[in-house]
Amino acid sequence: MARERMKVAVLGATGAVGQRFVQLLANHPWFELAEVAASDRSAGKPYGEATRWLLSGGAPREVAGRMVLPAEPSAVRSGLVFSALGSDVAGETEEAFRAAGRTVVSNAANFRTHEEVPLVIPEVNPEHLALVPPQRGRYGGAIVTNPNCSTIGLCLALDPLRRAFGLKRVQVTTLQALSGAGYPGVSSMDILGNVLPEIAGEEEKLGREPAKIFGTLANASVEPAKLVVSAQCNRVAVRDGHLLSISVELSRPVGVAEAAEVFLAFRSPLLDLGLPSAPEKPVSLNREFARPQPVLDGDAGGGMTVTVGRLAPCPVLGLRFVALAHNTIRGAAGNTILIAELMAERGLL
Amino acid sequence: MARERMKVAVLGATGAVGQRFVQLLANHPWFELAEVAASDRSAGKPYGEATRWLLSGGAPREVAGRMVLPAEPSAVRSGLVFSALGSDVAGETEEAFRAAGRTVVSNAANFRTHEEVPLVIPEVNPEHLALVPPQRGRYGGAIVTNPNCSTIGLCLALDPLRRAFGLKRVQVTTLQALSGAGYPGVSSMDILGNVLPEIAGEEEKLGREPAKIFGTLANASVEPAKLVVSAQCNRVAVRDGHLLSISVELSRPVGVAEAAEVFLAFRSPLLDLGLPSAPEKPVSLNREFARPQPVLDGDAGGGMTVTVGRLAPCPVLGLRFVALAHNTIRGAAGNTILIAELMAERGLL
Amino acid sequence: MARERMKVAVLGATGAVGQRFVQLLANHPWFELAEVAASDRSAGKPYGEATRWLLSGGAPREVAGRMVLPAEPSAVRSGLVFSALGSDVAGETEEAFRAAGRTVVSNAANFRTHEEVPLVIPEVNPEHLALVPPQRGRYGGAIVTNPNCSTIGLCLALDPLRRAFGLKRVQVTTLQALSGAGYPGVSSMDILGNVLPEIAGEEEKLGREPAKIFGTLANASVEPAKLVVSAQCNRVAVRDGHLLSISVELSRPVGVAEAAEVFLAFRSPLLDLGLPSAPEKPVSLNREFARPQPVLDGDAGGGMTVTVGRLAPCPVLGLRFVALAHNTIRGAAGNTILIAELMAERGLL
Amino acid sequence: MARERMKVAVLGATGAVGQRFVQLLANHPWFELAEVAASDRSAGKPYGEATRWLLSGGAPREVAGRMVLPAEPSAVRSGLVFSALGSDVAGETEEAFRAAGRTVVSNAANFRTHEEVPLVIPEVNPEHLALVPPQRGRYGGAIVTNPNCSTIGLCLALDPLRRAFGLKRVQVTTLQALSGAGYPGVSSMDILGNVLPEIAGEEEKLGREPAKIFGTLANASVEPAKLVVSAQCNRVAVRDGHLLSISVELSRPVGVAEAAEVFLAFRSPLLDLGLPSAPEKPVSLNREFARPQPVLDGDAGGGMTVTVGRLAPCPVLGLRFVALAHNTIRGAAGNTILIAELMAERGLL
Repeated sequence: MARERMKVAVLGATGAVGQRFVQLLANHPWFELAEVAASDRSAGKPYGEATRWLLSGGAPREVAGRMVLPAEPSAVRSGLVFSALGSDVAGETEEAFRAAGRTVVSNAANFRTHEEVPLVIPEVNPEHLALVPPQRGRYGGAIVTNPNCSTIGLCLALDPLRRAFGLKRVQVTTLQALSGAGYPGVSSMDILGNVLPEIAGEEEKLGREPAKIFGTLANASVEPAKLVVSAQCNRVAVRDGHLLSISVELSRPVGVAEAAEVFLAFRSPLLDLGLPSAPEKPVSLNREFARPQPVLDGDAGGGMTVTVGRLAPCPVLGLRFVALAHNTIRGAAGNTILIAELMAERGLL
Repeated sequence: MARERMKVAVLGATGAVGQRFVQLLANHPWFELAEVAASDRSAGKPYGEATRWLLSGGAPREVAGRMVLPAEPSAVRSGLVFSALGSDVAGETEEAFRAAGRTVVSNAANFRTHEEVPLVIPEVNPEHLALVPPQRGRYGGAIVTNPNCSTIGLCLALDPLRRAFGLKRVQVTTLQALSGAGYPGVSSMDILGNVLPEIAGEEEKLGREPAKIFGTLANASVEPAKLVVSAQCNRVAVRDGHLLSISVELSRPVGVAEAAEVFLAFRSPLLDLGLPSAPEKPVSLNREFARPQPVLDGDAGGGMTVTVGRLAPCPVLGLRFVALAHNTIRGAAGNTILIAELMAERGLL
Repeated sequence: MARERMKVAVLGATGAVGQRFVQLLANHPWFELAEVAASDRSAGKPYGEATRWLLSGGAPREVAGRMVLPAEPSAVRSGLVFSALGSDVAGETEEAFRAAGRTVVSNAANFRTHEEVPLVIPEVNPEHLALVPPQRGRYGGAIVTNPNCSTIGLCLALDPLRRAFGLKRVQVTTLQALSGAGYPGVSSMDILGNVLPEIAGEEEKLGREPAKIFGTLANASVEPAKLVVSAQCNRVAVRDGHLLSISVELSRPVGVAEAAEVFLAFRSPLLDLGLPSAPEKPVSLNREFARPQPVLDGDAGGGMTVTVGRLAPCPVLGLRFVALAHNTIRGAAGNTILIAELMAERGLL
Repeated sequence: MARERMKVAVLGATGAVGQRFVQLLANHPWFELAEVAASDRSAGKPYGEATRWLLSGGAPREVAGRMVLPAEPSAVRSGLVFSALGSDVAGETEEAFRAAGRTVVSNAANFRTHEEVPLVIPEVNPEHLALVPPQRGRYGGAIVTNPNCSTIGLCLALDPLRRAFGLKRVQVTTLQALSGAGYPGVSSMDILGNVLPEIAGEEEKLGREPAKIFGTLANASVEPAKLVVSAQCNRVAVRDGHLLSISVELSRPVGVAEAAEVFLAFRSPLLDLGLPSAPEKPVSLNREFARPQPVLDGDAGGGMTVTVGRLAPCPVLGLRFVALAHNTIRGAAGNTILIAELMAERGLL
């Protein structure tokens, strides 16, 4: 595979998540970032000029000079399209690309709940990609979605426990990073020395998405898992990295030592596939004091590893722990690219 | 009452909580801050020199020039002694003051779990002060304790629901302010743009103290309430104000509207006593977006009001919401002084 | 004076500086905040609803319910109008109010350089208010302007030295707070753990305004002072309080002790006038380590005192020191109100 | 050269700067980190246990398990010793290593002003290393010192102008990062939402060191340059990266365009030597709005490039601009290692 790199496009390439796509796709061994597209405001300008680059190191030189295209199938020619569009425009645009026969792997929320659209964390539910061929049959192209940034961290952190013991009920309180709100996103006046205990729509997504991700594929549709999730979401003054305080009721009582063993023994189901963005450890247990932390652990596994820690008995639900996921890498661009890599490996592109 | 102000002392007066005592006792109508005491390192210096004052406005002028005394009953003469000592020295020192016939109202954790020592939030369990006279009979003096800073916010926020519906199980995740760790406390290198998901000993205190506070007084001892609390504690980059994400199982299912009514109807049981530090509303409901917040709501009621918000159904435990308490005022010095005011009003000083 | 409070209006009342006007005018002994006005987007809504209140404690209850008026002379009837408008609309609007016979005391930059408009720090150049009557003669009403927030801190800090020794050249580097950029203002992604070494237009204002403020009134116009100011401006992650690193060349070499004496001996020229917002000390010297600081000293004198510190010999220009001014009180709303108080006292309203 | 890697030791390896040494020496092509040494408190423990690792990614695995040695010549056997010791112990310890025939390249301040000890920025004054052989003749070993972290940024930023035009007077105001104070260093209570306008001893170092660095080697000693530097130093809430606001008087008036050309034309004098840590551009000009910034530009050139921006005419001294240097890489460990690389290349090790 990958003798010649596949040309890909990023829609919404100038935003905070779009920039992560651009950064992660620079020098990607399988995909060549051939086109960057964005809203009308940016289209027609060189990418480096249209973008207020937010990441250390500056925009990759070979992308900075490229002209930003309008986010329309007539202007963008790549067959594989990554979408970092805002949900206000993603619905219509992604549908147009699908109708034009393209494969859209999207970070937007618009199609996540659609029955025919898979919602995928490659290590968790790769089999849901079976929804792609029927979708292509119906529309010409296909849309595959990436879950919410907090959902990905939660589901990856829970997955070893789910596989070993089965999940029943989950309580999660999030401490979410600023990059999740895009740019300019959260006003500094709102967050300096402060916490915002509400993120519009986030608690609903966290309550809804895990059941689909953990659901069973049957008859070309996903039967949601029986799982109750209650989420309370906070914004904190952190640049990257969503931290989750999690309590979980498993199908039977599980001690800390047993849970720790399960985390330590967990192996990525993707390990043998050689996917470029797949981390060696999708979930890693850190038992040091006050870990994981966004600053120290956010970049684990190139931002693709979810770090868990602070395993303890929970007198209410049984087991509690803390998880950290890099919200714009594993929680957004990185996981989305990993989905596409898995699709490539499976011949779904 | 209070014709002549009662002379009081603060032990541990130079630390972060000690400074709040000094600030709140300046111009107190009932108590006159006559003595400040601290560790040997500070004793013998003028307070203004021994203290790295952390609060806006500087140390009260009349205290700044006073000599810091050693924290010993032979040096400190006030009958009423507020303790802001660290738990490493509080045990021995407070016992010595009690043995010397003094009344110690303490913010330290050392005696909170002692059977003969009340653990008091004046609006919640004023009747527990009945433990004072027998203690005095036995030791000459008495120790009364102030709960942990997060416990106070949690118990005040829960109290209206407890009175109306009864509590069964509570899940709480805290986002705690820096001032709770004292000075120098948390290193800036640990917390700038970061979150620390562990605070030594805090989860145990939150798990243990509410049952005593909500317990029933019987035969000069407190029968703990049957209540399960599970806590996960985080330190965040906030100066003052602990934010709590709370889920609660009540003795029967309660809707959001019903819960809101209970919060709105809640009246301070202390209202008619005229205690100087008692806020009009010990608990206040704010229904605006993303409220309460430390910066905007921490000073509500002079820092003595706990603000709740974000009431929502919890699919796991039934009801969830957010609460905010000023950790060095209501959570420490302010509540401790209020205990003493209540004792004064009841003739227990 | 001030038997009956004068009715006043605030234009641009919903913004960050507008809110400071509203806060400071609540319970003002001479002025009654009778009208709040803002852009078309807010007009017609209750103030409490149209405003995302940013200050601790919430909007004053009596203002929160008041309807926001459009910022036009036909809608706003008060004779004294405070303007917190943005410079994009302030020009036209303030001119309209002046033409309608009103007195506009404005925080906007638009008219600061106009020859017939005074630019006033009441303790520094009260005599410049003599420009008001001729202006009224020409237009019916008058505009009086408040300097840039950093300029005010700089000029007040320099004024004792100027009066004692005369100024020749000034180098200043600013570390400016977020509230100076309004709301939403600076994105949290730009400033968390960061510094922005540029503030659009700020260095020009700091370079230009001091010469006018320190200028001499002659023939109903201001002859600018011969003073060279070079400014470099940075935005830092501070809520309120602009810190200035200042080096100054005086008309003769001045030692640290001599300069300190001058600061300590400085008395407000307004002291005997009884102006409600005039601080006892417009400039206060703090000689402790690492002072002044925004958090500890920003609220000095109710936010109206500029605190200086770190006096030291400067091998390049002669003398260097640090100054701190609360940017939305002394640097904006507070100084503007003080101008109006001085005008009232002088019979200029 | 460098067929076999030279074994090296780091003294003070557990501190904030020591960790940077360890990080930068992992996989160094010329040097093999063979020994880590620290204070008695840490000696005898495995490095990973003795160190509270502050950098993303964790301590290098091969170092984490190594036993920490006491910082004494009898325990540490490497001939080349990097010192990240605190100045309280560096004096005696470094002297002992020199007396034992070792080469000490030190980040500590103790010997920087000694006549026989060079103070080196490899791109600026490599010729000062000529002081090494005579020192070795006298003591057996040698000490070479790395300048203060802010001094390095200042001198590198000034060097292109110095070479082109000559320097006369410099005013600099620093905004310095937290990592410069070590760990735990600055209390979060002192810096959250705040600025500290004083750093003990820093203004003196900045005032003193540039003249030696820019000095002329003559008769085996350094004749200091005739250069006046006035510095005001502030601590800000930034993790890494010291920002400097600089005004400079050159030997003749120089316009912005001319200065920009000089910066753009500047080439590293080390370019042809193939030193592993030498950046392609020691100084890089960024002309975008509000650049350089610590978050975006601190890691330029692997942390070894000083970024300058905001070139403008200064009405007081002639020219002003802003510079940013990574304080623990270029300002400490990175520059120190580069010194040793240059010494290796010159046969001075």
